[in-house]
Amino acid sequence: MKERTPSLDLLARLRSGDRAALSRLMSRAESGAVEARPTLAEVYRLAGRAHVIGVTGVPGSGKSTLVGKLVEALRRDARVGIIAVDPSSPYSGGAILGDRIRMSAVSGDDNVFIRSMATRGATGGMARAALDVVDLMDVAKYDIVIIETVGVGQDEVEIARASHTTVVVSAPGLGDEIQAIKAGILEIADIHVVSKADRSDANRTIADLKGMLALAAHAGPRPDWLPPVIGTSSYTGQGIDELISQIRRHRSVVGRERAAAIAAFRLQKTAEALLMERLARNSAAAREMYAVELAERRRDPYDAASKLLTAIFGEERP
Amino acid sequence: MKERTPSLDLLARLRSGDRAALSRLMSRAESGAVEARPTLAEVYRLAGRAHVIGVTGVPGSGKSTLVGKLVEALRRDARVGIIAVDPSSPYSGGAILGDRIRMSAVSGDDNVFIRSMATRGATGGMARAALDVVDLMDVAKYDIVIIETVGVGQDEVEIARASHTTVVVSAPGLGDEIQAIKAGILEIADIHVVSKADRSDANRTIADLKGMLALAAHAGPRPDWLPPVIGTSSYTGQGIDELISQIRRHRSVVGRERAAAIAAFRLQKTAEALLMERLARNSAAAREMYAVELAERRRDPYDAASKLLTAIFGEERP
Repeated sequence: MKERTPSLDLLARLRSGDRAALSRLMSRAESGAVEARPTLAEVYRLAGRAHVIGVTGVPGSGKSTLVGKLVEALRRDARVGIIAVDPSSPYSGGAILGDRIRMSAVSGDDNVFIRSMATRGATGGMARAALDVVDLMDVAKYDIVIIETVGVGQDEVEIARASHTTVVVSAPGLGDEIQAIKAGILEIADIHVVSKADRSDANRTIADLKGMLALAAHAGPRPDWLPPVIGTSSYTGQGIDELISQIRRHRSVVGRERAAAIAAFRLQKTAEALLMERLARNSAAAREMYAVELAERRRDPYDAASKLLTAIFGEERP
Repeated sequence: MKERTPSLDLLARLRSGDRAALSRLMSRAESGAVEARPTLAEVYRLAGRAHVIGVTGVPGSGKSTLVGKLVEALRRDARVGIIAVDPSSPYSGGAILGDRIRMSAVSGDDNVFIRSMATRGATGGMARAALDVVDLMDVAKYDIVIIETVGVGQDEVEIARASHTTVVVSAPGLGDEIQAIKAGILEIADIHVVSKADRSDANRTIADLKGMLALAAHAGPRPDWLPPVIGTSSYTGQGIDELISQIRRHRSVVGRERAAAIAAFRLQKTAEALLMERLARNSAAAREMYAVELAERRRDPYDAASKLLTAIFGEERP
């Protein structure tokens, strides 16, 4: 049976919480297809109700386990959507984080929806696509949307930051290089979690974080919010309730201000995605010509790129 | 004493291999400053002689140690430049990989130059900046330029790919999540290295990689190059000479074709950087207005971004 007005129909189904409609619209959002935009635009206007929680941490930090436990607790009185942004192959895509959560106790629950997004899967910008997917979950009546990303790589870190509340997960006893990468993402935390708090070396990690925060507090960018440090354990359940109460507190303290920052970020990312899309248009011949001239060092990259932009956008160049 | 024509003078000094001139021009390239472009354009035309080797691998794979050993061997008959692209803080920058190499035996050698670049340090695109820095080393008479990146995150992986020869380093016995990330970068390898080959579980890692490659060979994208798998050990020195001879072989088999692909990549990245720069121009008022409308859900992101582009670029929009 053919649908006459598939998007409108899908939208109505989305608003009633229909999982199949949600899945289908998510795929469209990820594809970056121009035809999906009127629907996504409408979805955006309807959204804005859900609380978005970014959870990030280095590999091995125990993010996915924490997300599983968090969702188990949250779903007692809320519908929870999870977007797992997976580090993935440049060629084949991938779905790692999502699979881990899917294997946990929260899968199969009607009030929980898990979506994996491969880093490379999204045409026209990962951040743009992830935020569209957040809106879809929002409109499909998920009260809380969790975005989980591996805290390495600019896109991944940015996406985690574009949440109302950003949780950074640390674990005791990781390798040197991992620790060094970790240092790079600590600053984006609204809330610090130290996972595996049942381990004897966790107290050291907690103390280190608190020391760092005390130092930063003097010149801190958030006068009204000092990020708490919470030890959690997936074995004992320790810390999960405290984490949830801190997330709620953060929402009430910083919520409004953060929503404005997210809007500015989203404007930028969408503008970038539109520009990149326009850059990709109708330029195969010019692109090939300038690439050859570059390869032969007959032209420099700035000159070639500038000429390519003129070829694509005309003399009234952007 | 004031220099009258600082760039020309710097360029002359660069061409003679002057390290201070190289450092200064690298900083300019990283800053993305428009004034640096004429010099960088000239540098591009003079470059193209060095062989560029990308070395990437997941955290803990032993990349930096391998690069140290590789440089120790290569510097016997070549000048070697190293660019360590560091995973780094969104706010404060960072220099981890470079520091590790700097601590190794190759530091203090006049024929070796090590430069750390923080992922976030580069204005106008990491790839654009890294490739400009490659050219600078090239013109400063470094015969081989090694770009080391952590193999997580789209930018980092892309930069490693934009080399004449891409080496992916694996290590035995890493955690699950790391292994999963690893799977995402294996496909970009021209040469696989399994580090820590003195460990008993390294043979398993080597066998796994060979198995994967045998499967991929049937539908492989490189009919004239099957990526070799080389076990290396920084304790015994095993494999380093073989790695060097495979890098040379790869250069002779695939070199020309790869240079064309790198030129196309560079054209794209430079065009993107120029577009992003133009997007950032003179738009504070429009940007703020549309962000507010977005935050209040009075406008959707596509509409707002599209209007912002028109405000910046005019009706003849890109």
